[in-house]
Amino acid sequence: MRRYRLLIIGFGNVGQAFFRLLNLKRDLLGVDVSVSEIIDRRRGYIINPGPSVLEDARGGKLLGRKIGIDEIPRLIEESSADIVCEFTDLNIRDRGEPAFTYLSTAIKSGKHVITTNKGPVAFHYDELMELSRRFNKIVRFKGTVMAGTPSFNVVDLLPGIKVSRFMGILNGTTNFILTRMYEGMSFNDALRLAQERGYAEADPSLDIDGWDAALKSIIISRVFGWRHSLENMEVRGIRDINIETFKDKVVKLIAYADKDTAYVKPIPLERSDILAHVNENLNALRISTDTLGDVMIIGPGAGPIETAQAVLTDLMYIVNNGVVF
Amino acid sequence: MRRYRLLIIGFGNVGQAFFRLLNLKRDLLGVDVSVSEIIDRRRGYIINPGPSVLEDARGGKLLGRKIGIDEIPRLIEESSADIVCEFTDLNIRDRGEPAFTYLSTAIKSGKHVITTNKGPVAFHYDELMELSRRFNKIVRFKGTVMAGTPSFNVVDLLPGIKVSRFMGILNGTTNFILTRMYEGMSFNDALRLAQERGYAEADPSLDIDGWDAALKSIIISRVFGWRHSLENMEVRGIRDINIETFKDKVVKLIAYADKDTAYVKPIPLERSDILAHVNENLNALRISTDTLGDVMIIGPGAGPIETAQAVLTDLMYIVNNGVVF
Repeated sequence: MRRYRLLIIGFGNVGQAFFRLLNLKRDLLGVDVSVSEIIDRRRGYIINPGPSVLEDARGGKLLGRKIGIDEIPRLIEESSADIVCEFTDLNIRDRGEPAFTYLSTAIKSGKHVITTNKGPVAFHYDELMELSRRFNKIVRFKGTVMAGTPSFNVVDLLPGIKVSRFMGILNGTTNFILTRMYEGMSFNDALRLAQERGYAEADPSLDIDGWDAALKSIIISRVFGWRHSLENMEVRGIRDINIETFKDKVVKLIAYADKDTAYVKPIPLERSDILAHVNENLNALRISTDTLGDVMIIGPGAGPIETAQAVLTDLMYIVNNGVVF
Repeated sequence: MRRYRLLIIGFGNVGQAFFRLLNLKRDLLGVDVSVSEIIDRRRGYIINPGPSVLEDARGGKLLGRKIGIDEIPRLIEESSADIVCEFTDLNIRDRGEPAFTYLSTAIKSGKHVITTNKGPVAFHYDELMELSRRFNKIVRFKGTVMAGTPSFNVVDLLPGIKVSRFMGILNGTTNFILTRMYEGMSFNDALRLAQERGYAEADPSLDIDGWDAALKSIIISRVFGWRHSLENMEVRGIRDINIETFKDKVVKLIAYADKDTAYVKPIPLERSDILAHVNENLNALRISTDTLGDVMIIGPGAGPIETAQAVLTDLMYIVNNGVVF
């Protein structure tokens, strides 16, 4: 049995959930995978972490050698891991950096990469694909869209299919807020509730102004072969929404793209549209295809364990040498 | 590039749609696949069919050597094809025969098999899996449940996941009839309309008495590792349904199974349940999992092209030597 050694960058909620899930599911996967290194800004550089690292990591205190952020590329380069799992937080202002530097360094030094970070994928898609080709390494990023719920990768089950457009609810926080508003709650109260439940960030702008859904739309579009970017998209959120305006319809923050157009904005949906009934913090993606017409998938779009499942999906894709279908 | 030769058994709507789709998508698949033989009770035994076979096949007249049904196993045995694609019609009274004989003969003579016929899979699952192991040949049957729409095979995208139960709408004809009944149409008028549109069979009992959904439930259950059969299931259809009984709810013909229980019967759903809004002849499957909670897929559940897409999915699985994830 071939052995795979993983280098994890970023040991917050997702990194810890993945470490736990990998240990839990190892026997089901039929491969020998182990985490050989963890790099985390607060927790340091941890070599050959044992199971106790999960308990130790909770407080965020230093667990290994203290590292400066500038050292990280060199640590990646010198690592003997086979696969780099990049779980750092989205940085939209710096257009996916430093995550893109981590990923490109990993590929250039002969490692496959998995990321759950939308930034490097949405802002550097062409460069990542070019590096992937040039160094013959696999780049996977399922966790960037709808966590582990099958989304753009559903086409891996549909060989030969052509997708002409998609429409979806790609942000759970705004969907949760809209669901509460239809029950009579004000936008501000609903946002506060979402924050209390841990759905929304302390700075909720990424969610409620549509940027999170826009980055996901870009990633799905790129997988389907369409070239959209934040610059050519209309992006509107739900900050100033008045749901009373749309009588008999249900407003959802809709992400849409086809070859020519891409947008994220509130759209009033007919009640006969299944998307109108996707509530709470659920996500949904409807793709329009040549052989199956419309196919829709509904499931969770966030959460540590849910995102860790996406990393397992990417990991097994790499283990199988990129053969899905 | 490795060459694959296919033997098609049954050249009706699905067989013809698959032949057309294979020609259309061949270049996208990146493999050299050709149909070397077609066996059809009315159209005869056709060797190396060209594209014109589609036009010729329409009327159902004899296109090759006339064959008796008893000859078919021998023709399968002597064929040099790599993969047998079995597209004959469901025969519930004979518990999946003669299709099971065709499939077992194919496996025993060294061929992988694909079937879109629920009968042999639902009634002979253990035997097919045992033959698959013994002769090291792959058995695939995606088209038996929800045509090409990802259904039980969505777990191919979710390595390590555990499914605890499923709930779905697995029969499009009854869903179409119920949708019309909620618009005020009588059961009989709705059934007649379904027949006119080609959704229901001339003998609609398989659909409206729940047998079609029950066989699909058995197949999904077996894939998930649960041992259900028609004998231990409660199966009720919609023939005598009175939708007025369930105020404020929406009745759907629901297929459910977990490890211990399996049934098909009309269930009144809350309007907050997304399944209550899956209308027309759409199908839906909701699986409950350990890492993702509930995931639902909605799409077409029947149709020649839709089923042909499922056969492409199975074909590419076999071409990749059974590696999906």
